[in-house]
Amino acid sequence: MSEPQVIALDAMGGDHGPDVIVPGAAISLVRHPSLSFRLYGDEAKITPVLNKHEAMARRSTVVHTPIAISMEEKPSQALRRGKGSSMWMALEAVKKGEAHAAVSAGNTGALMAMSKLVLRPVADIERPAIAAIWPTVEGECIVLDVGANIGASAQQLTEFALMGAAMARALFHVERPTVGLLNVGVEEIKGNDDVRQAHTMLKDTAGLPIDYKGFIEGDQIGQGVVDVVVVEGFAGNIALRTAEGTAKQIGSYIRSALTRSMLSKLGAVLAQGGLKVLKQKMDPRRVNGGTFLGLGGIAIKSHGGTDALGFASAVDLAYEMAQAGLTARLTADLEAFHGRLATKAAS
Amino acid sequence: MSEPQVIALDAMGGDHGPDVIVPGAAISLVRHPSLSFRLYGDEAKITPVLNKHEAMARRSTVVHTPIAISMEEKPSQALRRGKGSSMWMALEAVKKGEAHAAVSAGNTGALMAMSKLVLRPVADIERPAIAAIWPTVEGECIVLDVGANIGASAQQLTEFALMGAAMARALFHVERPTVGLLNVGVEEIKGNDDVRQAHTMLKDTAGLPIDYKGFIEGDQIGQGVVDVVVVEGFAGNIALRTAEGTAKQIGSYIRSALTRSMLSKLGAVLAQGGLKVLKQKMDPRRVNGGTFLGLGGIAIKSHGGTDALGFASAVDLAYEMAQAGLTARLTADLEAFHGRLATKAAS
Repeated sequence: MSEPQVIALDAMGGDHGPDVIVPGAAISLVRHPSLSFRLYGDEAKITPVLNKHEAMARRSTVVHTPIAISMEEKPSQALRRGKGSSMWMALEAVKKGEAHAAVSAGNTGALMAMSKLVLRPVADIERPAIAAIWPTVEGECIVLDVGANIGASAQQLTEFALMGAAMARALFHVERPTVGLLNVGVEEIKGNDDVRQAHTMLKDTAGLPIDYKGFIEGDQIGQGVVDVVVVEGFAGNIALRTAEGTAKQIGSYIRSALTRSMLSKLGAVLAQGGLKVLKQKMDPRRVNGGTFLGLGGIAIKSHGGTDALGFASAVDLAYEMAQAGLTARLTADLEAFHGRLATKAAS
Repeated sequence: MSEPQVIALDAMGGDHGPDVIVPGAAISLVRHPSLSFRLYGDEAKITPVLNKHEAMARRSTVVHTPIAISMEEKPSQALRRGKGSSMWMALEAVKKGEAHAAVSAGNTGALMAMSKLVLRPVADIERPAIAAIWPTVEGECIVLDVGANIGASAQQLTEFALMGAAMARALFHVERPTVGLLNVGVEEIKGNDDVRQAHTMLKDTAGLPIDYKGFIEGDQIGQGVVDVVVVEGFAGNIALRTAEGTAKQIGSYIRSALTRSMLSKLGAVLAQGGLKVLKQKMDPRRVNGGTFLGLGGIAIKSHGGTDALGFASAVDLAYEMAQAGLTARLTADLEAFHGRLATKAAS
């Protein structure tokens, strides 16, 4: 079951570079001892950190490159001067088959642009998407697109559904994941043309390997009513960031509620077992890692500002998706869908 | 300062009709004793409830109508058969100057369509918007559009900014409210054309009575970085519903955290002062009431399923906006903006 997986790491990405990447990957290695790593970046900066993590060092190959993409660079600029950078080389390792997945905490726009160029979209899709893992009261669900593109046609939304379902299959081990289309109401007349047409396409296309549940509204994401939530990138990004902001806001309410008086503080001490579980559930590091879906290889984006624990979650995600053979299944599903569309158009 | 205000109530609106509307308005009357009410609906259903609320009965006039709009009716259907309904008559009272504001807990789509028809958009704007009051760590902000329309041009987004600012002025008593444009990033290249053009318009149009702060992201809404958040209706509705869902989700985490063990339960009892404050902050009834902005009169939509306390918040909101002379100020600001646009186009 557990095959050895090689993960390519952009060791220079993120706000802290190797100081977070190396210890983060080391945490994931404890969980998945079959992992090994290829680290791309400035050897003089990577090696000293690696020396402090013996087990990690034994499972790592360092490939030196002096070029690194900064967090501020525009995607176009990063593409121009990025060939041979740590980010580029990590993606290229996946392309060449030297690694099963790449993880970077670097500049999102640059990573998206480079991933498209190096790994190429599969099955002639126009647009890859960024998928996020979203905690729910039932467990987790997958939401996409959370910001790779603005707007999406009906066909693109249907492709997102298939891509998200392939990811759900890999992570949640369900054969026909449930899918909902995010809208401003659940009635058939709601939404714009693209959303309504996607609804029809998802409902009426025969043989899609998903269990389509129709429209869902924003408040249902966190209830875990479906495994996969499909939305175009503008609204999807705003939903994700708004949920993060709301969780943070309520976290600050909780802190002030429990430190309001001596009695509250004492109560918080007594309740600390339960509060610890609450804190874990609300910890954004548990689900760190956006996934670029629709490319000919696995590329994971970790938050730039995360710590080692958060980066470990992104590496875990890369491991699970590589383990499940995500890319092959996703490509096959998209090709089958395009085949059905073509047959339908011809008949 | 506190002038007597007359509020027109759609007594048949919402899931519970007069059983919630009358006691809800009675709560608001305690807070604002100068209020009086015109109640539209089935007299046989209203009078028995009114008899149980003596102070409220003294300040109320009941206007009988047998027609009521159901929660399921489509807007087009409601418009066809809705003339003379309790919803229609409440809006007409505002139009005729018999009331200063109307409040309904009825069908949102029907109320929006009827409000547009009866109260008419001001200053030749194409689209009114629905504004929501959003709790923040700093207090409250106003977010619009949360679902009146899908999509918005640059000019419409700028109009939303002015409309939201007029509401912020009325509620928060700041002369130049701060305004942010919701986007998927804070850099100038982010977002679609409409959003980027609105950014330029808000930044470069001289004399707008607002303090424009540029783009903000979803997680900044709850931080209270601005008084007014502008967004088109699809993403705005999804953001609002997602935040509501996240708050509910975390609420259920908190409940299970504090009832996990005997010790947790004891802790919760000791911390109950602080937890009560937390519960109040997270109570959606405190900010119940979407406002239709851009019309020639004040129309407030209360949640259909709310209780008396929630409906009272919607009546409070109607009172405050009527008190502040919202409609006149909003109309003047929009006309001044259109005047500037015309001058600029001519030069």
